[in-house]
Amino acid sequence: MRIDYATRLDNLLAKSGADLVAFAPGENMLYFTGLRFHLSERPIIGFYSEQGLSFIIPELEVAKLEARPDLEARRFMWTDESGYDSAFSEAVSTLAPAGAACAMDGQTLRFFEWRALERAGLSSARAMDAGELFLGMRACKAPEEIANMQRAVDISEAALRATMEWAAPGLTERQIADRLSAEMLARGAQGLAFLLVLTGEKTGLPHGDTGDRVWGEDEFLLIDFGARYNDYPADITRTFCHGAPTAQMRAMYDAVYAANRAAREIARAGLSCAALDRAARDVIDAAGFGEYFIHRLGHGLGLSVHELPNIVAGNEQLLQAGMVFTIEPGVYIPGVGGVRIEDNVVVTDDGIESLTSYPREL
Amino acid sequence: MRIDYATRLDNLLAKSGADLVAFAPGENMLYFTGLRFHLSERPIIGFYSEQGLSFIIPELEVAKLEARPDLEARRFMWTDESGYDSAFSEAVSTLAPAGAACAMDGQTLRFFEWRALERAGLSSARAMDAGELFLGMRACKAPEEIANMQRAVDISEAALRATMEWAAPGLTERQIADRLSAEMLARGAQGLAFLLVLTGEKTGLPHGDTGDRVWGEDEFLLIDFGARYNDYPADITRTFCHGAPTAQMRAMYDAVYAANRAAREIARAGLSCAALDRAARDVIDAAGFGEYFIHRLGHGLGLSVHELPNIVAGNEQLLQAGMVFTIEPGVYIPGVGGVRIEDNVVVTDDGIESLTSYPREL
Repeated sequence: MRIDYATRLDNLLAKSGADLVAFAPGENMLYFTGLRFHLSERPIIGFYSEQGLSFIIPELEVAKLEARPDLEARRFMWTDESGYDSAFSEAVSTLAPAGAACAMDGQTLRFFEWRALERAGLSSARAMDAGELFLGMRACKAPEEIANMQRAVDISEAALRATMEWAAPGLTERQIADRLSAEMLARGAQGLAFLLVLTGEKTGLPHGDTGDRVWGEDEFLLIDFGARYNDYPADITRTFCHGAPTAQMRAMYDAVYAANRAAREIARAGLSCAALDRAARDVIDAAGFGEYFIHRLGHGLGLSVHELPNIVAGNEQLLQAGMVFTIEPGVYIPGVGGVRIEDNVVVTDDGIESLTSYPREL
Repeated sequence: MRIDYATRLDNLLAKSGADLVAFAPGENMLYFTGLRFHLSERPIIGFYSEQGLSFIIPELEVAKLEARPDLEARRFMWTDESGYDSAFSEAVSTLAPAGAACAMDGQTLRFFEWRALERAGLSSARAMDAGELFLGMRACKAPEEIANMQRAVDISEAALRATMEWAAPGLTERQIADRLSAEMLARGAQGLAFLLVLTGEKTGLPHGDTGDRVWGEDEFLLIDFGARYNDYPADITRTFCHGAPTAQMRAMYDAVYAANRAAREIARAGLSCAALDRAARDVIDAAGFGEYFIHRLGHGLGLSVHELPNIVAGNEQLLQAGMVFTIEPGVYIPGVGGVRIEDNVVVTDDGIESLTSYPREL
């Protein structure tokens, strides 16, 4: 499968309305050029304009560009010894002469790189944050991107099944996480996208850390995780309880489950992100847990685990066929615990298809 | 061991010469506050000033702050629903009123966060990139930091020993990497800091990617890797050859080995970073491979795998007791291959102590 980077870049530049776009190592650079660089203290910046593709790049990374003659990329090279200021100057004077506007990948480019661009002559007025544009261009997925995510989901769910056949109260969060990690890698995961295991009252922290806490009888076990396959992630959450949940825990679970189902039923091309978020939130509000659903309903999923569309109140963007995102309502009661049920879905013309199918019942 | 975050923050603020410092999730935030947040599209910014510690923070991360009452941190909270602009406005008007200067962690804070600070009223003239200052404050290590890195090195070297007893030509880079990874985790590594396995002519790419290439008889095998222990990494490289290296390969290896040894012998408190880089480079130059040693001699090692001191030409900073850094000369000949021998050392009053002791001979 040959990816047409030139078309991706041309579309990006056209949509930006700017004279050039600038981006740093990470998923955007991977999507628009296929290049993998580490984001480090050594600045690497890609530019695309009518002059084609150019890079500010340290000498020791140049071989990766040379391995991609198809990109026909121009180089503004620097060395550890020379420092990078002259490469920035040359790049800005060549690519962004006075008056030229630059659309920046503002969620990846860092303040010190911006300062270097500024020193090189790019004024603040001519630089715009186009982080959302870069992400927006990636929101609708090609069939092969979806196939990669389906594979990542399949690996993840099979690994979770194997892990839950083995897991029991008495194990620590870290032990469960290690097992799940090994099960994913054994099934062909090419790295992990995410792995969080929480137990008991710690499940009440939506972004807590996996630790040495022991999963107790009658307690929640929340697992938020996903494998990567060909750079594409799964991002799945299931919440378990071994033994007898309290009536409150059961009520929390039922509300989240009903909200997840309602969202999967209503989602389709043409519905707004805000309306989808609302549909799930209404269910949780009606169950009396509204104040404990403290995050958006979901987020786009692609090369980045969090990308567009943003399924959140106030976002009137309409869902489009090919978008892939999470549906992950949650209820978190401090000191008690939390429940989240997270699926990964693809928008179709008349609804969604769920990539995830692991049982959602408690 | 209780870390004195207040003293770390006071020293940082005093050295900055600014009215407040600003930092984002990552190693700096961990070092100065002990807080672990993910760097994501949801901005979290820490500030420290005479008013103490403050955070712009999304509601769903607040529990982590609540779990740290010792920090007495003030919150400027936002939600997915409200967006973050008003939290930025409130924070800037409270912490950085007109005239106040802000020292920014420019290697972590991103352009979109800077734009949000600017919209909130922080002018460009009042913001300075203090990325090097943040890192500089972390360069001299406390004994417990060094003990963590020694443990990471010990785990890494034992894992490498076990891996090399098993490894043989015919295996792919990825198979060797997977085994080494498993050996580290089995010995108590708490995650991996780095893992790169290259073979044959690919060793000529200092930052190539581990792939499916098969290690051939008489070829170089370059392994750059390290475990993490209590957040602290090892960063070790060894280059192997099974069978008979060519005369050129042998000459490359001997030059790098001699340069590594020369640097370890001369390094001590009071020597400049540039002089240390020079000492190793002179050896490689004399052997005729100078043009192929295309990176600095080494980098500081701590919570970040790359930090200060920067062992590079032009850096007249003097080594100080307690600094921990890598010594990693390398020679990379395109189409042929490369050699790197990387050790991790601590500066003492009269020399260095090497944390690494894995044999360096071919």
